[in-house]
Amino acid sequence: MTGMSSHNLAERMESVAVDVRAMLETVLEPAALDGEINRPAHLMAAMRHGALNGGKRLRPFLLIETARLLGAPQEAALRVAVALECIHCYSLIHDDLPAMDDDDLRRGQPTVHVAFDEATAILAGDALLTLAFDILSAPETRLPPQTKLDLVNHLARAAGAGGMVGGQALDLLAETAPPDEAGIVRLQAMKTGALLRYACAAGAITAGADADDVARMTRFGEIAGLAFQLADDLLDVTSNAAAMGKATGKDAARGKGTLVSVHGIEATRQRLDGLVEEATTLLEPFGPKARMLTDAARFVAQRDR
Amino acid sequence: MTGMSSHNLAERMESVAVDVRAMLETVLEPAALDGEINRPAHLMAAMRHGALNGGKRLRPFLLIETARLLGAPQEAALRVAVALECIHCYSLIHDDLPAMDDDDLRRGQPTVHVAFDEATAILAGDALLTLAFDILSAPETRLPPQTKLDLVNHLARAAGAGGMVGGQALDLLAETAPPDEAGIVRLQAMKTGALLRYACAAGAITAGADADDVARMTRFGEIAGLAFQLADDLLDVTSNAAAMGKATGKDAARGKGTLVSVHGIEATRQRLDGLVEEATTLLEPFGPKARMLTDAARFVAQRDR
Repeated sequence: MTGMSSHNLAERMESVAVDVRAMLETVLEPAALDGEINRPAHLMAAMRHGALNGGKRLRPFLLIETARLLGAPQEAALRVAVALECIHCYSLIHDDLPAMDDDDLRRGQPTVHVAFDEATAILAGDALLTLAFDILSAPETRLPPQTKLDLVNHLARAAGAGGMVGGQALDLLAETAPPDEAGIVRLQAMKTGALLRYACAAGAITAGADADDVARMTRFGEIAGLAFQLADDLLDVTSNAAAMGKATGKDAARGKGTLVSVHGIEATRQRLDGLVEEATTLLEPFGPKARMLTDAARFVAQRDR
Repeated sequence: MTGMSSHNLAERMESVAVDVRAMLETVLEPAALDGEINRPAHLMAAMRHGALNGGKRLRPFLLIETARLLGAPQEAALRVAVALECIHCYSLIHDDLPAMDDDDLRRGQPTVHVAFDEATAILAGDALLTLAFDILSAPETRLPPQTKLDLVNHLARAAGAGGMVGGQALDLLAETAPPDEAGIVRLQAMKTGALLRYACAAGAITAGADADDVARMTRFGEIAGLAFQLADDLLDVTSNAAAMGKATGKDAARGKGTLVSVHGIEATRQRLDGLVEEATTLLEPFGPKARMLTDAARFVAQRDR
């Protein structure tokens, strides 16, 4: 059973990743849009390098599957998902900069500031961040105006000073002043949790779901975010650089606390199993068609096993 | 006559700058908004440093005066103007970074990466950029949903890869491969022109103006952008560091071409007078109430005299 559903999940994730890549190619094409003046070739190349370099496209997947579960038009959901992925990719480009995490490799490829230069990487990140809001607000995203505005506003709050960027800022401080457990939870809820929560909330908003379903999917996204981070922290401890395609053990090396360092590996795995249980219970009202999302939650939680 | 209108202009600009600062204080307050988790104090301090450090607030002024001319609600226009100013301020923070222009001073104060650190400056810029789209899309911006979406989409295109950020990218290239005259014009239309054009277009959109008036004000904004850049290039040649509050003569020192270096000081001043004439003619249909905007165009064009 697990084998079968995992198989379906892997196929569906791959299919979404192909669609996301194709739409990213479209929104990153060289021709200037209405209202634009010119798209400089080297800037667009840097944006493509940062956005098209693989990845599981987990955030788009959660968004699109949530939208599908709640009956949203799939073409619109794909555009919203691609907007979210632009935000995720910009954050990786800026995170990798010398002044931030100073990483040379990302998914086995040179990071944008290595492949291009630091200034171009800063600008490519800025441009991908800006592009996300272009995509959501453009006429091609065929949704009611207020729905699009809600998607813009929720994204801005998930990604900005009170969400992802704020989490990065807290993460910088954590290197010199390790936070306590509550501080770690908050930092992670912002740095990685906010976009995963948005993925599921936005899927529901795209579908025009009622407040109850938006709240339910928002909570599902929070659980997915928690599970993602805990599993990531476990991987940081247990895996090796080759399997991750990036440097590992870095958090420990920098003295950054994680919940794994507080509770240990076994207790963290038990917590992850509890989160999968909670996610599954939460989506029970939707019946078997929620299976893809609960499988995704399990996949996220058990990546290290 | 000039004295009287200049007096009005200076008073009105000062009044708008006070309003903009107050609204910036509001949108940068420490308390997290709905949908945000937490606003880290040091990140907010860096954002405030970058956003509240004076400046003429020219873009908000043009936006608010255009909105006023065309009958927009002033409270909404102020919020739209503040969103635009967030974009302008983020661009200055990122522009000043060591990897970009490497400036230590901005309006006589330490730049954000000097007052804080480089990583925090990158994040403060990212957060201000994101905040702009929060402000436009928030319920507090009381405009019809489609109007708000138009403001979001136009801003994204003015500020992104096909506008301001693309202009910065072209500017980086210009240091090693000086562009020809057409290249200089395009670079400047993107780097500084796009936001000034947006200011006037957005004022008209905020007012719900018809397509003709939006087009007219967009053209007015283009002229203001051209004049701004030409006057800035003149100042770079003719003024001194004390008067500007920042290093000058830098463009020339870096070998970057400007239209002043192509045409000379006198021809550039004549061109500026022609632009003021064109701007004045363009707004004639609005009668004397357009006076504040044509005075602003003259002020922008003749800053060096």
